[in-house]
Amino acid sequence: MLNTEVTKQLNIKYPIIQAPMAGGTTTSQLVAAVSNSGGLGMIGAGYLTPAQLREQMREVKQLTVNNFGVNLFVPTEFNVPQDKIDFANEKLKSIKHQLNIVEDSYHLPDAGKLNKTFYEHIDVLIEEKVPVCSFTFGVPSMEILSRLKKQNILLIGTATTVKEALEIQKVGMDMIVVQGSEAGGHRGNFIHEQHESMIGLMSLIPQVVDCVNIPVIAAGGIMDGRGLMAAICLGAGAVQMGTAFLTCKESGANKLHKEAILQSDEDQITVTRAFSGKWARGINNKFISAMQESETAFPEFPVQNTLTQSIRKASAAQNNPDYMSLWSGQSPRLAKSLSAEELINDIMSQAAKIING
Amino acid sequence: MLNTEVTKQLNIKYPIIQAPMAGGTTTSQLVAAVSNSGGLGMIGAGYLTPAQLREQMREVKQLTVNNFGVNLFVPTEFNVPQDKIDFANEKLKSIKHQLNIVEDSYHLPDAGKLNKTFYEHIDVLIEEKVPVCSFTFGVPSMEILSRLKKQNILLIGTATTVKEALEIQKVGMDMIVVQGSEAGGHRGNFIHEQHESMIGLMSLIPQVVDCVNIPVIAAGGIMDGRGLMAAICLGAGAVQMGTAFLTCKESGANKLHKEAILQSDEDQITVTRAFSGKWARGINNKFISAMQESETAFPEFPVQNTLTQSIRKASAAQNNPDYMSLWSGQSPRLAKSLSAEELINDIMSQAAKIING
Repeated sequence: MLNTEVTKQLNIKYPIIQAPMAGGTTTSQLVAAVSNSGGLGMIGAGYLTPAQLREQMREVKQLTVNNFGVNLFVPTEFNVPQDKIDFANEKLKSIKHQLNIVEDSYHLPDAGKLNKTFYEHIDVLIEEKVPVCSFTFGVPSMEILSRLKKQNILLIGTATTVKEALEIQKVGMDMIVVQGSEAGGHRGNFIHEQHESMIGLMSLIPQVVDCVNIPVIAAGGIMDGRGLMAAICLGAGAVQMGTAFLTCKESGANKLHKEAILQSDEDQITVTRAFSGKWARGINNKFISAMQESETAFPEFPVQNTLTQSIRKASAAQNNPDYMSLWSGQSPRLAKSLSAEELINDIMSQAAKIING
Repeated sequence: MLNTEVTKQLNIKYPIIQAPMAGGTTTSQLVAAVSNSGGLGMIGAGYLTPAQLREQMREVKQLTVNNFGVNLFVPTEFNVPQDKIDFANEKLKSIKHQLNIVEDSYHLPDAGKLNKTFYEHIDVLIEEKVPVCSFTFGVPSMEILSRLKKQNILLIGTATTVKEALEIQKVGMDMIVVQGSEAGGHRGNFIHEQHESMIGLMSLIPQVVDCVNIPVIAAGGIMDGRGLMAAICLGAGAVQMGTAFLTCKESGANKLHKEAILQSDEDQITVTRAFSGKWARGINNKFISAMQESETAFPEFPVQNTLTQSIRKASAAQNNPDYMSLWSGQSPRLAKSLSAEELINDIMSQAAKIING
């Protein structure tokens, strides 16, 4: 049951993919440990510069001879409306004051620049011969896809509904990460609105599997061998796990972030767009509560992300989790503090027990 | 794997419970067909009078010698605020006009009366020797629970979070239906607010299973053998399926409701409190869209349910699904038009195929 089309195509021993969490969580140590333990490690490159990406890829290749992957954010169009920016800054002012942020100079994101960086990322992936590349927030142009395909790079898209999965299949990608409403961090919806895309994996996986003919990878709330086996029963060929690897020893997530997940209950996990302008799931805290009334009026991603950057940084620097983005899926009670190898071995032995009744 | 503590205690062949959908869906024919086919049929008695409940129980007993169950709504306190009622009536006026509802006389619900009915329901269950009784919207008093336990009636509570599951275990019930965010119809949360209780089954089942020591029944979005096997892998002892049985031939759901589910996609399923004052999941339609902006200001259940009754009735009478409550879980693409027996046989043969690899 666990030797699937996904493990075959990705050339991995176990159907376990470490989710490409952007923002420093996916250290080279984590990525390599996952790949060395039979899974697929993934670099979350969404916020990296092309030079940083190249450096990390070289580092990972020093640490493992096995396959690994890189995830990129597909740049999307966005507005930079001054009235919304003023509104957000007004709402964020008292928090910045509390955190003693006196001078807050930020550079608003530039769509042209982000597009250029995306092209440079693609160049790095090709030059450094990445085996696997996944995309979030949409599908790239056919030109980019065909450049990558010519290099035999395996391509994975991210979908939150059947229509999004069909779009990923249509543009010729090889696999689909199906993100359920349980998933932590940013939502991957790109055709549907947030409220249309919050579908639990129990519903979403079989409905997608019935409509596509490329392999499906289940993502959202999966933490152990029970979740892996459930996803396989529903028709997935592998799982992608974020929160479970975030609390691992090799992960670069902030210590406060790891502790918050390890101490959290499932009813404290919420969704917010106040941190970045894009809906994302994490642990409810002072920032999310304080911003809840205003969040739908804030500018969109990545503009709002820029406006809150100093708050998130200062909060972390002051050892105060109240204003940090504590991304987490809906299963924090299942989180553990293990090495990536221990986690993968635990998952596989639990799965074996289920298979053997 | 499929002979569980649940099948043993309920004395059923297969770990499949037909969800007790109130409002006419769970006909005696449906309940008996499920019980005769190896599952547990359930009467949704939430809106029945005690006399109607007694009559239906006698009818079911004529049609099957196997176990079946009855579900009751636990009466909850509610306010009858005239300003909110006036607000709702004002918002509903144009729809009533469109549907040619000229005289709309309703009796606002009376808490004392609903409590009295609940006690009478309990009397009927004891007199008619129901084998299984489940509760939604909370836990009844210890007095009622001990009366039922003395008769060896098996008691099942409904939870949407770990805390709610622990409360059900604490009062001494025998099993817990764990309702995921995928589930159709009314939400069963009774400790947590709606927004805290929308947890996908992939996350919710293992977290509950780890915290309780009585059997767990998974409910929400499960439609076939894949969902059954996934729930079992996650640690559930059985599944409770609503939407899958709603479109069955024996179900008493309105033909328009069945057709709407059979034609719906997963991205059209939403949550609303505009129909009843309690959050519930169903197919988005004109009524839900038109009321969306106002829904949080409407009176609570069952007051709002009374105010919209004439609209739902007239819409159905006029063969117009636009203003009916088309409850559905998040998996409408998996719905089929079968007999209950065919559905159960399909589920079990699909499950067997998964088990046998």
